[in-house]
Amino acid sequence: MTNVIRIEDADDPRIAEFVGVRERDLTRGEGRFIAEGTVVLRMLAAAHDRGDQFLAEKILLLENRVEGVSEILAQFPPEVPVYVASSDVLDRIAGFHLHRGVLALGRRVSARTSSELLAGLPQEALVVAAFGISNHDNIGSIFRNAAAFGADAVLLDDACCDPLYRKALRVSVGAVLAVPYVRAGSMTDILTALSAQEYAIWGLSPGGELEISQVPGHPRMALVTGTEGEGLPASVLSVLQTARIAQAPGLDSLNAATATGIALYTIARIQGRLKNA
Amino acid sequence: MTNVIRIEDADDPRIAEFVGVRERDLTRGEGRFIAEGTVVLRMLAAAHDRGDQFLAEKILLLENRVEGVSEILAQFPPEVPVYVASSDVLDRIAGFHLHRGVLALGRRVSARTSSELLAGLPQEALVVAAFGISNHDNIGSIFRNAAAFGADAVLLDDACCDPLYRKALRVSVGAVLAVPYVRAGSMTDILTALSAQEYAIWGLSPGGELEISQVPGHPRMALVTGTEGEGLPASVLSVLQTARIAQAPGLDSLNAATATGIALYTIARIQGRLKNA
Repeated sequence: MTNVIRIEDADDPRIAEFVGVRERDLTRGEGRFIAEGTVVLRMLAAAHDRGDQFLAEKILLLENRVEGVSEILAQFPPEVPVYVASSDVLDRIAGFHLHRGVLALGRRVSARTSSELLAGLPQEALVVAAFGISNHDNIGSIFRNAAAFGADAVLLDDACCDPLYRKALRVSVGAVLAVPYVRAGSMTDILTALSAQEYAIWGLSPGGELEISQVPGHPRMALVTGTEGEGLPASVLSVLQTARIAQAPGLDSLNAATATGIALYTIARIQGRLKNA
Repeated sequence: MTNVIRIEDADDPRIAEFVGVRERDLTRGEGRFIAEGTVVLRMLAAAHDRGDQFLAEKILLLENRVEGVSEILAQFPPEVPVYVASSDVLDRIAGFHLHRGVLALGRRVSARTSSELLAGLPQEALVVAAFGISNHDNIGSIFRNAAAFGADAVLLDDACCDPLYRKALRVSVGAVLAVPYVRAGSMTDILTALSAQEYAIWGLSPGGELEISQVPGHPRMALVTGTEGEGLPASVLSVLQTARIAQAPGLDSLNAATATGIALYTIARIQGRLKNA
């Protein structure tokens, strides 16, 4: 484990990236992000170790949390500095009471296209493509569900919000750092890349042709989802095979996270991907 | 439609229940609650019309919203007063900027026990029992999913938070006003009531004996769920049949709403309750 560096002053330039962390969006521009809490820190350690997608830059801890996370800290190389501060100093840095007391600054180092990401996936694959998702909770949930059901990748068009945004990363329980993804290009770019790699593509829609459990299995499958409320645009639905989730009569009332979860669970079972099914 | 009464003064006693609405919890004690937004107002109108569970007491609208919701207002009897206010006055009443501009005060009038509620359900039924859920989002999601998959009732033990709490009601998209429920008694009381009515009871747990899709159908089924993270206590799991949701290896990473949604979807299909399945 690296040496621990004590911070006495909230204005110390070495921890400047953590100042006012709730209000800032570090993701703009430089691809930096804040990881919060022990679970996400553990995911960042694993991602840093792989090294192809994310690197950890620095860690900032409440002084009395160091011992509790020492096993995770030991997974980072010594060049990642670990700063510690008292509760008072940490709250002044963060700008609010940070009861978890575990923060890290990470950076995304990958810039693949959808085609490049897809080309590196196994012969049998399941991916999620999401278009126009602007809600951080929903983006985070997509990643959490993708991880839960063993999806190989998430493809986001450039109209989606950044999954490294603090709230999205937290809602994902760190899955954004674990499930390979690309956020680039248009819906058309992503659908074209999927077709070129011979994916069976299914758009999720309340008016879908097949109930999701009737979708035929295929070695490479892609589930496509749009925004809660609006759903996928008609122009996209018209060119895709579509699947619905059976519900009680009345208004369509699943939230986006639950709908994606049910679809991924069902398709992963159809593909025989879940070992304890 | 009833006459519309103009409010010029944020201190007007006729709208006192709406003052500082974000910070207050009207549910304590008197069973009153705040319905927000047009979707929930519509659910309240339907509930008021049924009259056995909830009554509307008064409605407060932003002046320019009256026309847009006139069709819903027409569903309330004339003795339910409709107050309107300008944006300035409404924001002073609410204590923050209320961009939806649609509020109503409702009251719960039912006080059934679990046994009474169960006795009134059809011969073929699906119910959810939830124990110790203290998170308003999760309570709201349980109701939203129960409505989506046509569950007949929700049974909450007295350790669950109140589903009429403003945030839970909003997350449920008004389903709390549509799906019959009881919030009373202990876990044991509820499990005893279910057994007495010959329900097949299945506890949801990551370590469940059967994968959820392998659960045999039964005319009367109850799904039992505990808190996110902790789950059901070992004392409850030891006396129940249990079901798991198949997932990728690693930590159990479904959130409570998604897990309940997948379980309800699967069991509702096994029971043949979903018409478009």
